[in-house]
Amino acid sequence: MTHDFATLSDFRTCLAGCTPADDDMRAAADAHNMQLTKPPGALGQLEDLALWYRSWRGGENTEISTPQVIVFAGNHGVAARGVSAFPAEVTAQMVMNFQHGGAAINQIARVNGATLDVVALDLDQPTADFTQAPAMSEEELVAALQAGWDAVNADADLLVVGEMGIANTTSAAALACALLGGEAAEWTGRGTGVNDAGLSVKTQVVAEGVTLHKGQGDGLETLRRLGGRELAAMAGAMARARDLRIPVILDGFICCAAALCLEHTQKGALDHTVAGHQSAEAGHARLLEALGKPPLLQLGLRLGEASGAALAIGLLKGAMACHASMATFAQAGVSDS
Amino acid sequence: MTHDFATLSDFRTCLAGCTPADDDMRAAADAHNMQLTKPPGALGQLEDLALWYRSWRGGENTEISTPQVIVFAGNHGVAARGVSAFPAEVTAQMVMNFQHGGAAINQIARVNGATLDVVALDLDQPTADFTQAPAMSEEELVAALQAGWDAVNADADLLVVGEMGIANTTSAAALACALLGGEAAEWTGRGTGVNDAGLSVKTQVVAEGVTLHKGQGDGLETLRRLGGRELAAMAGAMARARDLRIPVILDGFICCAAALCLEHTQKGALDHTVAGHQSAEAGHARLLEALGKPPLLQLGLRLGEASGAALAIGLLKGAMACHASMATFAQAGVSDS
Repeated sequence: MTHDFATLSDFRTCLAGCTPADDDMRAAADAHNMQLTKPPGALGQLEDLALWYRSWRGGENTEISTPQVIVFAGNHGVAARGVSAFPAEVTAQMVMNFQHGGAAINQIARVNGATLDVVALDLDQPTADFTQAPAMSEEELVAALQAGWDAVNADADLLVVGEMGIANTTSAAALACALLGGEAAEWTGRGTGVNDAGLSVKTQVVAEGVTLHKGQGDGLETLRRLGGRELAAMAGAMARARDLRIPVILDGFICCAAALCLEHTQKGALDHTVAGHQSAEAGHARLLEALGKPPLLQLGLRLGEASGAALAIGLLKGAMACHASMATFAQAGVSDS
Repeated sequence: MTHDFATLSDFRTCLAGCTPADDDMRAAADAHNMQLTKPPGALGQLEDLALWYRSWRGGENTEISTPQVIVFAGNHGVAARGVSAFPAEVTAQMVMNFQHGGAAINQIARVNGATLDVVALDLDQPTADFTQAPAMSEEELVAALQAGWDAVNADADLLVVGEMGIANTTSAAALACALLGGEAAEWTGRGTGVNDAGLSVKTQVVAEGVTLHKGQGDGLETLRRLGGRELAAMAGAMARARDLRIPVILDGFICCAAALCLEHTQKGALDHTVAGHQSAEAGHARLLEALGKPPLLQLGLRLGEASGAALAIGLLKGAMACHASMATFAQAGVSDS
C-alpha cells in the first residue's frame, strides 16, 4: 500500500513494521540450486545472491527483467563553506545532464537494461548549514522521505538508488561519524577531488556538525540534522522497496550513509539490501564493514549517481538467470557425481 | 587474414608477429576521457579499461555490441587416474547441455548480450595420460590450435574463451607448475570438488607429469606435453583475437594456464587480454599474479565454462558505454571545476 507520512513518527512506525526475509522460500531456493548442472557451490557468491533474492522476491523461475535506478538530487547549505571541488550550480547542471542522457549513470543503466528516474529535490533551496542548525526541519525531512517513497516503481524487481548533490560527501561523513563514532578525519575524504586545503576545511566542517548534533536522537533524527534531501529520499526509497519486497543494491558512501540512518533507527531495516561496490571514497570500506555488507565490486569508482550499484545489476541478473533457467542434472541427463 | 597452420613452427611465427597496442589511440582516448562529465578518475578502473580497449580497437564512439563467448571441450587421459569428482562422460553430457541452453554459461552469455559457440574437440579420443607420454602429438596440438583460431568470429568486438573437460584442472596445474615452478601441491586444487583422497592422487599425478615434461621446451611445447585439446584451442583463439585486434577477457585457472603457454612462448602475447575474475580454485590467484593481471571480479566462482569472464562482459560494456556516449563538460554545459 502507499503511505502519506504526516509526521516523522508515521515513517518510524512504518519502518518498525517491515517484514523479514522468507526463510521457507530461501530453503526451497537452496534445494533447487543443488539440482542445477554445476558442482555444488561452483557459482560462488552468485548462488548466495540468488538465495537471498528469492527470500525476498519468491518464484523459482523468475529472472530479473525490470530493474529501476533512481537518482535523487539535492543541495547543501555547507557547500558555501568550500567543501567541494565543484560549485553548487553543478548539482542542477548534472540533473540536466541526467535528463538529456549524457551522464555515466545513463550509460550504465542502459547497458544493464534498467529504467532511470531522476528526482530533483528543491535545488533552489539548499538545506541549512548544519554547523549552525539542523539541516532540515521535520517537515522538510518528511517531504524528502515521501519523495523517495513515491519514486519507487511498484513493478520493479530490483532497485538501485543514487544521488547527486555538491557537498553531500560532507553530509555523509558527518552522519557516519555521528552514528558510528571515531574522528571526523577518519570519515572525511576528497569527494569529487578536493585539494589538501579543501580537505582540511571539509574535515573541520564535519567535526563542527558532529559536535553540534551527535547523540540528539536516532538515525532519522540524525539524518534530519546532518543529512540532506537526496539522502533522505534514498532512505525513503529503500524503505518503500522493503515494503514492496524489492531487493536493493546499495551504491557508494553517500547511499550507504543514508542506509545507515535506517539501520540505526530499526535494526534489520537493510536486510533486503546488498552492497554493490566499495568506493574509493575514504570511509566507505569502514562504513560497509559497520553495515556488515561485503561489496560485490571493487573497481575504485567514486562517482556516485548510483553508478557502482548499477554496474552490479548485471551480476544480480546473471545470478538469477542461472538460478531460474539452468537445467537440472535430471533434465539434462548429466551425471551428478 | 586466416591462416592454415601446417606445423607448430607456423603458429610460433604467427605469434612472434603479433602487433602491439596503439599508444597514439590510447593517448587520444585519454584526452577524450578527461572531457567527460565526471570528476577526473571518478570511474576508477572503468576508465583504465576504456583506454586499454581503445588501444586495441580504435574508434572513439564505439560501444561493445558483438561480444562472443566460445566454450571448447576436450577429454583427458589422466581422467582415468581418478583425479576428478565427476566421470569423464560428463564432458560430452555438458556439451549437450550447452547446446540445449541449460548450462550456467548459456544464461550468463545471454544476459550479457553475447553469442555463444561450443566447440567439442574429439571427445571420443582423450589425450594421452601425460604421466606416461606427451598428452598430444604435434599434429594433434596444431589441429587444436587451428580449431581455436578458426572459431573466432571476425565481427566480434570482445572475446571470452572458456572450457569444459573432466580432469582439466589437473592439466592446468601441471602447466602452471612446469612453467612457473613451485611444488605440485601449491598448484593443485579441488577442481569440481574432489575429496581429500582424490586431491592426494591428483597432486601425485601433477607431480609425475611435471617431472616427466618440465624444461622440455617453450610454452607451446609444454602445452603439447601437459595440456589438452580445449586448452590448446583456447590459446589458438586468443592468438586469433590478437591477430584481429579483438580484446579478450580471460576466465579462470584453466583458461589462464592456456594463456600462460602463449606468454611463455612470446612475451607480450597477452597484452590484449584482461583477467575477468579470480576463481576459488587453488592456484588461480598466484597464476594471475604471475601473468600480471589483476582480476575484475572476485566472487568465488570455480565453474569454468567461461562463466566468470562472461560475467565481466557487463563491466567492459559499461566502461565503453560511458567512454563512447557520455557528454563532455562543454556539450552538457557543466562547470568542470
